[in-house]
Amino acid sequence: MGQVATGELSADEAATRLRHLPFEDMGFARVDHHRALRCGFPEVIFGLGKTPEQIVEIFARLADSGANVLATRVSRDAAEKTRQRFLQAEYHELSSCLTLRQKDEPKSGGFVAVAAAGTSDLPVAEEARITADIMGQRTKTFYDVGVAGIHRLLAESHALQSARVVIVVAGMEGALPSVVGGLVDTPVIAVPTSVGYGASFGGLSALLTMMNSCAAGVSVVNIDNGFGAGYQAALINRVLERAQSRSNEDHAV
Amino acid sequence: MGQVATGELSADEAATRLRHLPFEDMGFARVDHHRALRCGFPEVIFGLGKTPEQIVEIFARLADSGANVLATRVSRDAAEKTRQRFLQAEYHELSSCLTLRQKDEPKSGGFVAVAAAGTSDLPVAEEARITADIMGQRTKTFYDVGVAGIHRLLAESHALQSARVVIVVAGMEGALPSVVGGLVDTPVIAVPTSVGYGASFGGLSALLTMMNSCAAGVSVVNIDNGFGAGYQAALINRVLERAQSRSNEDHAV
Amino acid sequence: MGQVATGELSADEAATRLRHLPFEDMGFARVDHHRALRCGFPEVIFGLGKTPEQIVEIFARLADSGANVLATRVSRDAAEKTRQRFLQAEYHELSSCLTLRQKDEPKSGGFVAVAAAGTSDLPVAEEARITADIMGQRTKTFYDVGVAGIHRLLAESHALQSARVVIVVAGMEGALPSVVGGLVDTPVIAVPTSVGYGASFGGLSALLTMMNSCAAGVSVVNIDNGFGAGYQAALINRVLERAQSRSNEDHAV
Amino acid sequence: MGQVATGELSADEAATRLRHLPFEDMGFARVDHHRALRCGFPEVIFGLGKTPEQIVEIFARLADSGANVLATRVSRDAAEKTRQRFLQAEYHELSSCLTLRQKDEPKSGGFVAVAAAGTSDLPVAEEARITADIMGQRTKTFYDVGVAGIHRLLAESHALQSARVVIVVAGMEGALPSVVGGLVDTPVIAVPTSVGYGASFGGLSALLTMMNSCAAGVSVVNIDNGFGAGYQAALINRVLERAQSRSNEDHAV
Amino acid sequence: MGQVATGELSADEAATRLRHLPFEDMGFARVDHHRALRCGFPEVIFGLGKTPEQIVEIFARLADSGANVLATRVSRDAAEKTRQRFLQAEYHELSSCLTLRQKDEPKSGGFVAVAAAGTSDLPVAEEARITADIMGQRTKTFYDVGVAGIHRLLAESHALQSARVVIVVAGMEGALPSVVGGLVDTPVIAVPTSVGYGASFGGLSALLTMMNSCAAGVSVVNIDNGFGAGYQAALINRVLERAQSRSNEDHAV
Amino acid sequence: MGQVATGELSADEAATRLRHLPFEDMGFARVDHHRALRCGFPEVIFGLGKTPEQIVEIFARLADSGANVLATRVSRDAAEKTRQRFLQAEYHELSSCLTLRQKDEPKSGGFVAVAAAGTSDLPVAEEARITADIMGQRTKTFYDVGVAGIHRLLAESHALQSARVVIVVAGMEGALPSVVGGLVDTPVIAVPTSVGYGASFGGLSALLTMMNSCAAGVSVVNIDNGFGAGYQAALINRVLERAQSRSNEDHAV
Amino acid sequence: MGQVATGELSADEAATRLRHLPFEDMGFARVDHHRALRCGFPEVIFGLGKTPEQIVEIFARLADSGANVLATRVSRDAAEKTRQRFLQAEYHELSSCLTLRQKDEPKSGGFVAVAAAGTSDLPVAEEARITADIMGQRTKTFYDVGVAGIHRLLAESHALQSARVVIVVAGMEGALPSVVGGLVDTPVIAVPTSVGYGASFGGLSALLTMMNSCAAGVSVVNIDNGFGAGYQAALINRVLERAQSRSNEDHAV
Amino acid sequence: MGQVATGELSADEAATRLRHLPFEDMGFARVDHHRALRCGFPEVIFGLGKTPEQIVEIFARLADSGANVLATRVSRDAAEKTRQRFLQAEYHELSSCLTLRQKDEPKSGGFVAVAAAGTSDLPVAEEARITADIMGQRTKTFYDVGVAGIHRLLAESHALQSARVVIVVAGMEGALPSVVGGLVDTPVIAVPTSVGYGASFGGLSALLTMMNSCAAGVSVVNIDNGFGAGYQAALINRVLERAQSRSNEDHAV
Repeated sequence: MGQVATGELSADEAATRLRHLPFEDMGFARVDHHRALRCGFPEVIFGLGKTPEQIVEIFARLADSGANVLATRVSRDAAEKTRQRFLQAEYHELSSCLTLRQKDEPKSGGFVAVAAAGTSDLPVAEEARITADIMGQRTKTFYDVGVAGIHRLLAESHALQSARVVIVVAGMEGALPSVVGGLVDTPVIAVPTSVGYGASFGGLSALLTMMNSCAAGVSVVNIDNGFGAGYQAALINRVLERAQSRSNEDHAV
Repeated sequence: MGQVATGELSADEAATRLRHLPFEDMGFARVDHHRALRCGFPEVIFGLGKTPEQIVEIFARLADSGANVLATRVSRDAAEKTRQRFLQAEYHELSSCLTLRQKDEPKSGGFVAVAAAGTSDLPVAEEARITADIMGQRTKTFYDVGVAGIHRLLAESHALQSARVVIVVAGMEGALPSVVGGLVDTPVIAVPTSVGYGASFGGLSALLTMMNSCAAGVSVVNIDNGFGAGYQAALINRVLERAQSRSNEDHAV
Repeated sequence: MGQVATGELSADEAATRLRHLPFEDMGFARVDHHRALRCGFPEVIFGLGKTPEQIVEIFARLADSGANVLATRVSRDAAEKTRQRFLQAEYHELSSCLTLRQKDEPKSGGFVAVAAAGTSDLPVAEEARITADIMGQRTKTFYDVGVAGIHRLLAESHALQSARVVIVVAGMEGALPSVVGGLVDTPVIAVPTSVGYGASFGGLSALLTMMNSCAAGVSVVNIDNGFGAGYQAALINRVLERAQSRSNEDHAV
Repeated sequence: MGQVATGELSADEAATRLRHLPFEDMGFARVDHHRALRCGFPEVIFGLGKTPEQIVEIFARLADSGANVLATRVSRDAAEKTRQRFLQAEYHELSSCLTLRQKDEPKSGGFVAVAAAGTSDLPVAEEARITADIMGQRTKTFYDVGVAGIHRLLAESHALQSARVVIVVAGMEGALPSVVGGLVDTPVIAVPTSVGYGASFGGLSALLTMMNSCAAGVSVVNIDNGFGAGYQAALINRVLERAQSRSNEDHAV
Repeated sequence: MGQVATGELSADEAATRLRHLPFEDMGFARVDHHRALRCGFPEVIFGLGKTPEQIVEIFARLADSGANVLATRVSRDAAEKTRQRFLQAEYHELSSCLTLRQKDEPKSGGFVAVAAAGTSDLPVAEEARITADIMGQRTKTFYDVGVAGIHRLLAESHALQSARVVIVVAGMEGALPSVVGGLVDTPVIAVPTSVGYGASFGGLSALLTMMNSCAAGVSVVNIDNGFGAGYQAALINRVLERAQSRSNEDHAV
Repeated sequence: MGQVATGELSADEAATRLRHLPFEDMGFARVDHHRALRCGFPEVIFGLGKTPEQIVEIFARLADSGANVLATRVSRDAAEKTRQRFLQAEYHELSSCLTLRQKDEPKSGGFVAVAAAGTSDLPVAEEARITADIMGQRTKTFYDVGVAGIHRLLAESHALQSARVVIVVAGMEGALPSVVGGLVDTPVIAVPTSVGYGASFGGLSALLTMMNSCAAGVSVVNIDNGFGAGYQAALINRVLERAQSRSNEDHAV
Repeated sequence: MGQVATGELSADEAATRLRHLPFEDMGFARVDHHRALRCGFPEVIFGLGKTPEQIVEIFARLADSGANVLATRVSRDAAEKTRQRFLQAEYHELSSCLTLRQKDEPKSGGFVAVAAAGTSDLPVAEEARITADIMGQRTKTFYDVGVAGIHRLLAESHALQSARVVIVVAGMEGALPSVVGGLVDTPVIAVPTSVGYGASFGGLSALLTMMNSCAAGVSVVNIDNGFGAGYQAALINRVLERAQSRSNEDHAV
Repeated sequence: MGQVATGELSADEAATRLRHLPFEDMGFARVDHHRALRCGFPEVIFGLGKTPEQIVEIFARLADSGANVLATRVSRDAAEKTRQRFLQAEYHELSSCLTLRQKDEPKSGGFVAVAAAGTSDLPVAEEARITADIMGQRTKTFYDVGVAGIHRLLAESHALQSARVVIVVAGMEGALPSVVGGLVDTPVIAVPTSVGYGASFGGLSALLTMMNSCAAGVSVVNIDNGFGAGYQAALINRVLERAQSRSNEDHAV
């Protein structure tokens, strides 16, 4: 809500707008068309637990606005149904993401690094990458760099240090974010995955590990929540872009 | 490691430096003097489980470098002992933080917002604020704005939207970050606290709430880890500052 | 047991009746025909883990009394079998409820509000609504009003404040009841749902959130227990109706 | 917010008022003076984790309004300090409640029953009773009626059936609410307590028992949360009183 | 090992026998033929996780001894395969038990009561009943006597008090054993079941309830372990039978 | 309730008596004087969470009846106060039990074995032994026979096999009951203790071990609940004694 | 890295090599060819969550080196596909292991014992045995020696005492390692399995038991992690072999 | 039991000896004097939960044999009392260990490495070191080498690779063993510590991390169980020493 931040809109008007924020009541859902303004990106469809029909319907409402559309956790069936109506929509099988790119946002200057500990963590890592990508971020991936073969990570430490934000995806013991957090001076967003067995308890072990990281600068999102990590990485970089653009404007003046 | 990022140092040299990074072996601790270069801020003393003597000793080593020093979870007794040697050191009773400000870093342009749900969450919120502050951030506090009296939060929504990063501290059910996350377009760092009783299970309830936040753009640190939140908020803003300063240099050319 | 409450029946007789309360032994179940008198509504069939044949059989016994019949968690198969015998029975697919309305109880004066945070919470919300409805309550629904887009809830705050009881259904972080509890002066019955993934642990996260609500006036039922919430909401309103009818009688005298 | 409910105030005005709701910023707390209007009772002080000075201060602000004041979980020390300033304030040692009765609200017609399973559950039961009492309810207590000696409960079944709401307090296995729920046709609010040892896990066992109650009409509040139960019981009865008073007015016309 | 108990066998010989106890190595299993002597009943086949072929094979070895054979958790498929070889073997569908009765042990004088809270608990209750039965006990069942309709239980209290041991099977909140334990003066063996949903956590809730029972004289076996309860009930009664038979012999002399 | 069991009392009369069972209301407690008749032993005082005054008071009421009195978890202070009034009361320091022996019940023929894995388990083991003893059982103890030195247990296997019931007390991994259960043909009552550290989680580890025992014939009571185990052991033996005495009477006729 | 250990390689060179350790980037995986040198055995394929195609591909890369290849948790389908390309590869159905033996390492002098409590634990035990075997160890198996029939274990105590390392596999209560640990003077590696039901919580119960073992000399790997146990047993024996071979060389000189 | 392993003693005699293994019954404890023969080291005193008097008494019995004595978790008070009787006993304050060195066992050829992640982990690490030391091992310590400053660990990788066994002690997220496990080819014994706060849950987080380690060759002992790790490390090396000595004897022949 840049306008508010730069003082162009009084607090009173802001409060009044909040009360009258537009949303579209579809019976089973209230599509929050205002979200792009308020939170910096249109609503994203969380596909789990929605019927293919509901997904197609909400997808259509969001596409109408002309913005890029992202749906996560979409079954192949729902994706097929949606793509019958939106031929340009792309289904990313590994991560179960469905995207529709309707406008090409200018990519930001820096990049978001997405590191994954093992091959099995890729679906979650890809969800993070695709989310950051459709929100206008450049991304680089660093896959299969788990701590049990630390040299594979060290070989990439230079590249990781160049990123503006690092997303680290790891299952099992989830130790990777702590090591990465000690190598870089940028924010690290850790994503525990449900990869593992036995005492991994569906990702709980990795989650606790990341929560207790002795490396400062690490924050954590939900188990398997690649979307949340990609989203926050984009937000972080957006603050940067916006501040820079203002800075440039100042110089332009 | 800005030098690496801007290509002034070859990857090879970077790797070699990593092997030879300096640390000081004190017997019971290895003080990581290189950390300021690598991670953007000198090592911070975690006081819990260290004797007053150990704290004084490590504090002294870190102070020798001329940098600002931060120690968290310091008992009043350890603080007294340290202040006998460092008269300018300041003890923040509410948050049990001990700080020594030896150089005044230029404050960044934007500010970090620190919101707390209730009065009992203040020790953790203050730890976050002090951490961000000593790392060169401007901060604003929004205390006692819990969701059960939502008008107190809405009254501040304008101000929160102006922040570059928002730290949200909450115990009990920990619902505040979800509401804030839906109001702003900046990253939200959520800090669950151990405030509560019964089924709060020492902060676990608030932690799970925040992990499951339906608001995108929210990441979480450990229970009562105000330091971690303040630290990451500063990191986020630092990326911004560094990028801006480069941007300015470009314009200057 | 209104008779007892108004003193028409001595305590002794009440105790004696308890010993002789009628139930019908079906071998695999003891149908509690007395329940309508004792608890204000006939026994409700919990379909989970019962065979279609058992459900049909118990349904028939309850229908014989001429009362309205409610069965929850009924599979489509069991519903079909029951409807072959009871043509007027209605199957509510979304909530897996099966109802037979045999008498139209006069609707109460006020209404029960049923609010749901997200689209995926609707099966549970509908179970609550249908339960309250068949127990003679007027109901209004407020669906997809989760806290991440707080304006959707605020837009309905007026309507919610008019309800006599508010049922709030939410999964994931389950924060909605706390916010609603701070907006209304009526009892709030919170229903956590198993909607979510990762650290939602099958609804445990939402359950703990609601348990720790900082808003007074919120009580909680089991995960996905829409029935329990609808039932208690009806009980609350019944106390009211009964008291009012007595009050009216007093005035009539 | 009866005014809204009876239509005397337009929805627009209600929304505007929400934005301008009064609260008093004390630095460490924002006292919500509007709460009495919005939620039906003034803010209640939760004493745990507040200094005696903070408690006295907030107590004073709330007392200024002339309303009855309730503070829970107040240490004897904080109570002494408060009573030096408010001589009429009463400290209830067993339940650690501190009350100041400044106006005598007319007691409601029905009564709230407070049942407790064992002697050790009394502190929590008393917190519930005192809360309901100061909110204008008549109360009756049924202490030490646990299920292992079921005749003690049955001897009181008549009396329990006369209540408008029944609060049931139990630790250890927490089975009492299920039995009571099967005996009465009024809402039952269950309060698990932390009484027990070993596998009671601080009240978790009793909490789970109550959550899974096979008796419909039972809802649950947090472990040891007598206040929450008393508060909701009062809310339930208030809805009743308000409806009755309206009903009476109708007759009066 | 009655012989030892009556002193017919020296401790030395007993120890030596332990070393030479017979078992039959089948490669995948070591059938403990000595068990009937040592523990009072031949080994019982736990069918879960064994192939039909393995079950048939072990069943055959045990049947060879001429004793009664019991296999629990046997799939219908494995049961069919076994019955092709043992025509008299009986498959109990509800409880998935397979029995072969080869000798008719004289029934004991008293009886084992098996009480179950709800219809869904019957598979576990039946496993208990069948186990006790094949171990030579007379049994009586009391099904669907859950605490929410306490009169159904009270109506049977006389009969329950006549039992020598009472097995109480209950899922959901698992409160029944506490109530029964307060009504009888015989040992109560409680069996939690996995019947329930949400916060029942697969029977954990019922298990904790029973563990924390305020009724003395209640001990607990594993979730869904009807076999264990039936087995211990039989052991208890066997001690009795053996002691009585000795007593009779004394009188005979 | 032998009378009922032998048919001297009609079911009707039994039910009527239940309603009129005597208890004494002391305000904070309802002393269940009828319990000795109904459950075979007078009420036992659970001292935890009761004031010394309350304990003395209840102790006195129970002593008045002339029966033996048992109070568990009694602090030394409360014990002193009680003994000032009851000089013959005996305080068992190790187990915190307080007993008053007013009549010498004839000891039963067999004995209850109490086995404990380690020295630290003795307080719980002693609570079990004292409980069984005051309920008229002969007891034998087998202390420090944990499984890590299996020969210490095997050396006692002869003696254990002679017991009528075996109570097995163990902390840490709690493996002892499984081994004992495989050595004897009598019921085993397992008592997990909170002895241990780290992953013992206050006895949870031992509790789960015992729950999952592969040895049939093992049932479990709450963590540290020596009383419960002793009580049930006595109940088991009482059934036996009563049956024997009847058997003897039959012979006498 | 024997070379380092014997001083043939300077520390500097070692560090340099770490940076340049070879791995092969396959897009979805980075095959760590250096691992055999660094950790004593080539990388092992963890089949769970990998597609058959990925498994075949990685298998081929590892086979190229001429070393023995091990893949665990391989589905029958993936095994078939791999064996089409590697005819000599062997699929072990019970344990889902796939092995390719390309060179016959000389077997070590001692042997690794693999003990399993029950028949259902065999898949995990076999995974341990096959892993140790392909890493060049002689193995002996002791299956179905659970503690409930302790004589079956005692009969093998002589043989177990001859092993160099003992792997103990057990589900349900997991008590076997404690008993074995008290019988032998060699390291015991305990493997909890997910065998069980109810309160075994997927192996958690067995895991906790083993963690709390009162027998010193027992360490634990993850639930169902037969591979990890076999691997560590081989490592232990390798240290031995290497030391012995050096010792022999010394004698040879 | 080297004798058995080398065949000097028949299996029969071994079994007989097991039955007659000596232990000394002290009433509260059975001192297992045979343990040194059977398990390779005399019994160790676990001080927690024992009175100073009991510790002194058991210490004396063990010292009588002339062997080295180790007591862990000994309070300063108990240590003082013991040292009054055994002047040469040494109290290690940091680790609360008490040792009496009565004979100097020849140190083994290799060494046991003890690595600790942070300063607060030192008490546990020292318990491990002292245990290994008194059992005749040479040890080297590597303290404060946690993963957040990975260069501190890499600087020691050469030295760690020379060890025969590596004990890795870590609290908080417990990631160190995974990294070490990927650097060395020797067995790694991981010890989680209770160091941490919030979501470390008393060491549970570190325990789970280590359980789920992606590095093969890592096994785990209980939280804070430095003793167990030191003990197993010594066992591993003992196997080695014994094998070597035999190898030497063979060469000597």
